[in-house]
Amino acid sequence: MQRVLSTELATHPYEKIRVEGWVHRIRRLKSVSFLIVRDAAGLAQVVVTDPALIRAGEESVVAVEAVVTPNAQAPGGVELTEPVIHVLAEADPPPFELHRPTLAASLPTQLDHAALALRHPSRRAALRISAAATAGFRRTLEEQRFVEIHTPKIVESATESGASVFELDYFGRPAYLAQSPQFYKQMMVGVLERVFEVGPVFRAENSDTARHLTQYTSLDAEMGFIAGHRDVMVTLTATIAGMFAEVQDRCGYEVPAVPSEIPAVHFTEALRIAGAPDDEPDLAPAHERALGDWAWREHRSELVYVTGYPMRKRPFYTHPDPADPAYANGFDLLFRGLEIVTGGQRLHRHADCVAALRAAGEPLEPYRGYLEAFRYGMPPHGGWAIGLERLVARLIGAANVREVTAFPRDPHRVAP
Amino acid sequence: MQRVLSTELATHPYEKIRVEGWVHRIRRLKSVSFLIVRDAAGLAQVVVTDPALIRAGEESVVAVEAVVTPNAQAPGGVELTEPVIHVLAEADPPPFELHRPTLAASLPTQLDHAALALRHPSRRAALRISAAATAGFRRTLEEQRFVEIHTPKIVESATESGASVFELDYFGRPAYLAQSPQFYKQMMVGVLERVFEVGPVFRAENSDTARHLTQYTSLDAEMGFIAGHRDVMVTLTATIAGMFAEVQDRCGYEVPAVPSEIPAVHFTEALRIAGAPDDEPDLAPAHERALGDWAWREHRSELVYVTGYPMRKRPFYTHPDPADPAYANGFDLLFRGLEIVTGGQRLHRHADCVAALRAAGEPLEPYRGYLEAFRYGMPPHGGWAIGLERLVARLIGAANVREVTAFPRDPHRVAP
Repeated sequence: MQRVLSTELATHPYEKIRVEGWVHRIRRLKSVSFLIVRDAAGLAQVVVTDPALIRAGEESVVAVEAVVTPNAQAPGGVELTEPVIHVLAEADPPPFELHRPTLAASLPTQLDHAALALRHPSRRAALRISAAATAGFRRTLEEQRFVEIHTPKIVESATESGASVFELDYFGRPAYLAQSPQFYKQMMVGVLERVFEVGPVFRAENSDTARHLTQYTSLDAEMGFIAGHRDVMVTLTATIAGMFAEVQDRCGYEVPAVPSEIPAVHFTEALRIAGAPDDEPDLAPAHERALGDWAWREHRSELVYVTGYPMRKRPFYTHPDPADPAYANGFDLLFRGLEIVTGGQRLHRHADCVAALRAAGEPLEPYRGYLEAFRYGMPPHGGWAIGLERLVARLIGAANVREVTAFPRDPHRVAP
Repeated sequence: MQRVLSTELATHPYEKIRVEGWVHRIRRLKSVSFLIVRDAAGLAQVVVTDPALIRAGEESVVAVEAVVTPNAQAPGGVELTEPVIHVLAEADPPPFELHRPTLAASLPTQLDHAALALRHPSRRAALRISAAATAGFRRTLEEQRFVEIHTPKIVESATESGASVFELDYFGRPAYLAQSPQFYKQMMVGVLERVFEVGPVFRAENSDTARHLTQYTSLDAEMGFIAGHRDVMVTLTATIAGMFAEVQDRCGYEVPAVPSEIPAVHFTEALRIAGAPDDEPDLAPAHERALGDWAWREHRSELVYVTGYPMRKRPFYTHPDPADPAYANGFDLLFRGLEIVTGGQRLHRHADCVAALRAAGEPLEPYRGYLEAFRYGMPPHGGWAIGLERLVARLIGAANVREVTAFPRDPHRVAP
């Protein structure tokens, strides 16, 4: 007998079909009982006249053969009658209920029981939105000649910032987990001009906040033959629009409009808008929130670029603004008052890279392989890194990135 | 002036355009010189009458403004004349030539200079094929309701096989790099029914062969509500066909036919075909090659499944063949005589998982989070893992997986 997904039942009126899924809820009334079956698509209501037929508790896996019976009162307009219920796997009684609109368990309890908590429709929906956003990222970039790459996650040197890198034992010598694919994606611009990577990055920062993870998914892109960071912003804007569109298409989730030109303010102007002292070297979370409010108030945009951060706060490979070298040819993208993307133009001349490393007091030897790309010719280029979990959390209004991550990692959590 | 890609030049006859790219080759003849410019798409021939205009060597980055002039003798039917050459970045003379049909440098030299060697058209083509195969993997699975997931690469316990796991320092306590997303993708079957992941996996095996890497890209899928491993094989066959089709479509690379039903032989039969003793517990590389030859000879198939491996060689979560529990409900897929996929049905009842762990002499505590999925109801399920680099190497006839990996990692190589 053909398996039919819960959301397709209405197209099979009066047919005998099979649904398969988890016992989402059992409602025992006086004269009848309802067995709600949850599958990947949604919920199906099974009408059980003999309650003794329900021999498995919530979260047990069942296959139900039954007749699809139209009923305007039932969810989805149909219910399943005359059921034969097969139990495929019995479940222990769950420690918290999955059929309430929101999970009553605390976030730490949810994370401790991730295999169960992720089954809640709200958590599951966040993961689908995350998958759709990622698909939209790839689709938009592939349409613009970007090629997907996979780069090493184990690296020889803790080059980007020694303090926040995980060290591992690599056959008896130290190696490190990559903080980002930055150097590799730049090297690959020399090969393929335009590249992107979707992959894990690792940050050993001991900060237990609602927006930090020690492993997160970075959506990286890098492109050659640009005139400056504005070319990168144009491509990023199209990519964000493509991601949101894919979320709307696949998940039916209402997404904010992405202006064809997202408002952009220079860092010095951003400080003024945020009411920060004009010698601040960076934007604090409160400043980002103020900028988000300003962008909505002034431009009806939920996205805003901040450009021209001070060079002293940016990494060595940052390209300065030719008109004012104290500021970077770079940007952050804030979404609803939170930074979700960092990007910009990079240095592309070998001599400039070497000079920047020397100015930063860095030895050249750990950058040997990276510098080779520049020794043998690199075009003007730039790119960005989107934090997937931050973007999705902001999109669906989750207060904590852990709510949109299947099995989050933080300084105090490395399981399950 | 509009930038035109090298492969699009023929559509702009007699126009003045701009090409941008790398100096691939300089040919100085008596009366004229040719500057061959390489961009992401291909090569463009620039005719230079005054050799003094060529002021940059091979691999330098240039922008050339010139007139597109049809010439049947030129590659692609056009050449660029009356050029104005701008040097965007000068290159040092490369240690090996990139314009020969094959790279003359040894593989170790290529890998030492990866940023340069990857620019060779053959190496670059392999990376594009890899990207196309990955896109085909995702497309085929998404068409069948699979949802993309991202799972932790840092795990609490060295559960799958302690000997070959990288240990890292996680805020002062030990943690490990994930050998595979196996446990997580199974747990996610309980959430989304059908999932896939494209991501790095890490193997600390000290084996320096042509087919092993310490980090490689695993194309994982897992699906619920199956009748047995044959359902998984059907989906895998469609996925391989989808991957090959995408490679052909995107790269124009001739791919082998994938039979709608790939020949499958039971392990015991495979031993006989390979001429191996019938008490061998596994297939050696020579046996795999013999099976590849047999599949081509008997079935004109470059792919062959081997099913029913002995349970004692399979991991604890393997589902036994109900008809003969000494053999697994699992399979390997060999492509041109090399194993590129392992998969099968998994145990799905909590009691079976616990019993299998106990029989393997494993403590239950490290599997706590994994076992919770089963405690709260898991459907019959199975899946597979494809080694991307192996598949691509086999597809293009590369002798070593390092030839199709951008920055390979092995026991002796952790840079660049």
